[in-house]
Amino acid sequence: MLLYETIATGLRRQIAQGTLRAGERLPSVRQLARAHQISPATAVQACLQLEREGLVQARPRSGYFVHAAPSAAPIASAPRRRAPGMVDNPALQDLLELPERPGLLPLHAAVADASLLPHAALSAALARVLRRRPTASFDYAPPQGDAALRRRIALRYEQIGTPMTAEEVVVTAGAMEAISLALRTVTAPGDVVLVETPTYYGILQAIAALRLKVLEVPSRLGNGIDVARLDRLLQHTPVRAAVLVPNFSNPTGGLTSDVDKAALVASCARHGTVVIEDDIYGELAWSGQRPLPLRHWDTTGKVITCGSFSKMLAPGLRVGWLAGAGWTDALTRAKYFSSCSGASLPQLAVADYLARHGLERHLRKLGRTVADNGQRMRDAIVRHWPEGTRCSAPSGGLSLWLQLPPGGDGQALFEAALADNIGISPGTLFSSRGDYGDCVRLSCGLPWDARLEGALRHLGTLASAQL
Amino acid sequence: MLLYETIATGLRRQIAQGTLRAGERLPSVRQLARAHQISPATAVQACLQLEREGLVQARPRSGYFVHAAPSAAPIASAPRRRAPGMVDNPALQDLLELPERPGLLPLHAAVADASLLPHAALSAALARVLRRRPTASFDYAPPQGDAALRRRIALRYEQIGTPMTAEEVVVTAGAMEAISLALRTVTAPGDVVLVETPTYYGILQAIAALRLKVLEVPSRLGNGIDVARLDRLLQHTPVRAAVLVPNFSNPTGGLTSDVDKAALVASCARHGTVVIEDDIYGELAWSGQRPLPLRHWDTTGKVITCGSFSKMLAPGLRVGWLAGAGWTDALTRAKYFSSCSGASLPQLAVADYLARHGLERHLRKLGRTVADNGQRMRDAIVRHWPEGTRCSAPSGGLSLWLQLPPGGDGQALFEAALADNIGISPGTLFSSRGDYGDCVRLSCGLPWDARLEGALRHLGTLASAQL
Repeated sequence: MLLYETIATGLRRQIAQGTLRAGERLPSVRQLARAHQISPATAVQACLQLEREGLVQARPRSGYFVHAAPSAAPIASAPRRRAPGMVDNPALQDLLELPERPGLLPLHAAVADASLLPHAALSAALARVLRRRPTASFDYAPPQGDAALRRRIALRYEQIGTPMTAEEVVVTAGAMEAISLALRTVTAPGDVVLVETPTYYGILQAIAALRLKVLEVPSRLGNGIDVARLDRLLQHTPVRAAVLVPNFSNPTGGLTSDVDKAALVASCARHGTVVIEDDIYGELAWSGQRPLPLRHWDTTGKVITCGSFSKMLAPGLRVGWLAGAGWTDALTRAKYFSSCSGASLPQLAVADYLARHGLERHLRKLGRTVADNGQRMRDAIVRHWPEGTRCSAPSGGLSLWLQLPPGGDGQALFEAALADNIGISPGTLFSSRGDYGDCVRLSCGLPWDARLEGALRHLGTLASAQL
Repeated sequence: MLLYETIATGLRRQIAQGTLRAGERLPSVRQLARAHQISPATAVQACLQLEREGLVQARPRSGYFVHAAPSAAPIASAPRRRAPGMVDNPALQDLLELPERPGLLPLHAAVADASLLPHAALSAALARVLRRRPTASFDYAPPQGDAALRRRIALRYEQIGTPMTAEEVVVTAGAMEAISLALRTVTAPGDVVLVETPTYYGILQAIAALRLKVLEVPSRLGNGIDVARLDRLLQHTPVRAAVLVPNFSNPTGGLTSDVDKAALVASCARHGTVVIEDDIYGELAWSGQRPLPLRHWDTTGKVITCGSFSKMLAPGLRVGWLAGAGWTDALTRAKYFSSCSGASLPQLAVADYLARHGLERHLRKLGRTVADNGQRMRDAIVRHWPEGTRCSAPSGGLSLWLQLPPGGDGQALFEAALADNIGISPGTLFSSRGDYGDCVRLSCGLPWDARLEGALRHLGTLASAQL
């Protein structure tokens, strides 16, 4: 067991036994370090682990406090501010237009900054493919996608012990098209689809566009999907499909444990619910330890795994995938009649890049950098945002999820920030019912610098002014 | 009036007055040339024009004959062979897998051969954009598409006098995604959508996938959409949208006249039917004279125009567009929640190519080459295919549409050809009801050479063996 885990286990026991009670302060980092003869960094790591698990909560300028309801404590918006649901949310239109605003600080986009991505190596791969395979670069790709790329994608799952063949991979325009195609293939209008709440607004909008009904199960801040609740819901409602983000959920960063993943897949199989898993952040573990996809526990061929190179390599390439379980032919047809096939050159270039460089070194570095950025951002939020602000403590992905103290308004903060050319995502976008009016999502994919620090300070000032 | 038009007018008058009766042979090319003191080429052009208009029909080894029903004579399949409709047609699966067959002669794909497309200039544009705008090349494009590209697209319509602004253009993954997004935006499941018959199977499949009902109006071989019939249909049935290919329809090559286009747009406006026009072949006039899109006559903002650079520049770039009339915001959202945005690099490269080269010279050359190929293919079909085979005589686009003589079977011909590594498209794919079992579509986008000539001869032998 790692050192910080030993410390965390001790604290966990104290909480369970009531030595540390709800609302009480944990020993400070300095006290913990001195008492256990460890470095302050290790003490911080132990506290962060407990925060991830929802057991404790960081309070700006005060330290860590034991949660009132320690076992399952999502950031849950009080109904005090209910905005329109995301489907008719006016902020969405603003958000779609943000990429075109010059000079905007893009804290709204859950994407790694250009400086963190291997653009030079990708440029070289693009040039190489254009030179060596000009005809293939300009001709239609097969609807299912380039065969070499499909092999590379399957191989990445095989390497973590999750069976996948190239034959069941369909190349898509990112994970968004993968989810959209999967939903279109396995559902009919009127079907019930289960999602986590909060969840990525793209998922909610794709569901709404297909005239499907939404059922929500909480995504817990530290521990991901509430599987017991999910199982109870499936017992009472026929649910055709569940669109879930088990690894570093967007926006909460929640990571569902292996035990819960196994239970989740079994529960869905029992109730005839197709699982569509969005594994887009699975490769972005800050520790370098890639968590397993739900597919790993699939024994009935009812898990469709979606992923993308958007967050790892470059979003503008629009190269993603799905592994279609028993639906590969139907999904390939859906792809064809949605856009014929993906652009050829990006597919060939990604396959070339993967063959030449692999992803391990790049992902290790990316994870470390984003983890560092995330920690600095959390520190700045603790320093500059109003007391009572809660912030997720993810161990992967590209997002921080913040709840403002009572009186805070994420939508108003979004608008005020935009006026100062800072893009953030208002919380209501992540709910089909307009919940999370007091929440916002920030990207932690930007490199740490004075401008980012200044923006976080300014956002804190704007948030304080609301109270 | 051009010389061949004078000759055609004279023949038209003879047919109208009954001097030349249904079933009678026209004067031979040699006779026409001698009588009017014109070249044989001009005489051929006059006959072809009448064939396009559906007034006469070429019979292999015999010459041109006046049609039995000269005013509207589509190739109409007898119900003698009815295959499964295109949605569950097993040939479709084969067709999707054809691009991966090595050494296949791709007569099944309505696409211009690589040798006819400006790959070198496009490669240079891609390299230039990568060098000059690396960040934009790898980052998400705006969901609506690159602004400079949208301006270029709108400009091409403005140049032919059809109003369009960059603000209403949405960049798509080819015309297929444009049509799919337009249908998803303006229809609800159960709505009735009108199409031509025969029509592109992608349109039929997109309609089926959205659980819409299909209503068919004939596409006449020479003259395109039967507008009088369309108006009668709209009078009796509430039709939500019409997906039409007025310019060089796929597969027939039919070109709807300006008078008919104006009447069509007015009829749809009168009946509250949204027009989704697939203008993908509009720029591929063999004469160089680009026909106008339906949008030209739109006064109520109910025509959505779809197009693509796939046929003009390179299909593998997946850069197309739609001009969304009043639905631009909804269409942009649909694009976002279908695939976020199009791949960035291809968009930037096409905009760069257009700014540097324009399209005029390339399209003139492409049109001339395809026209020449098409004529040589028709000649070879007349020589080598069984007597009684009918072939379309398009003046644009990339397809020839053939009807086999009684006893011919397009599906069997498709399978026999595939066994010999020649790809063709069976006619049933172009019908929602499995009509056109005795038809096939051939691409005329391949350069004329001995292999193509040999393949056409071989296909003729296979077709003759069926009888």
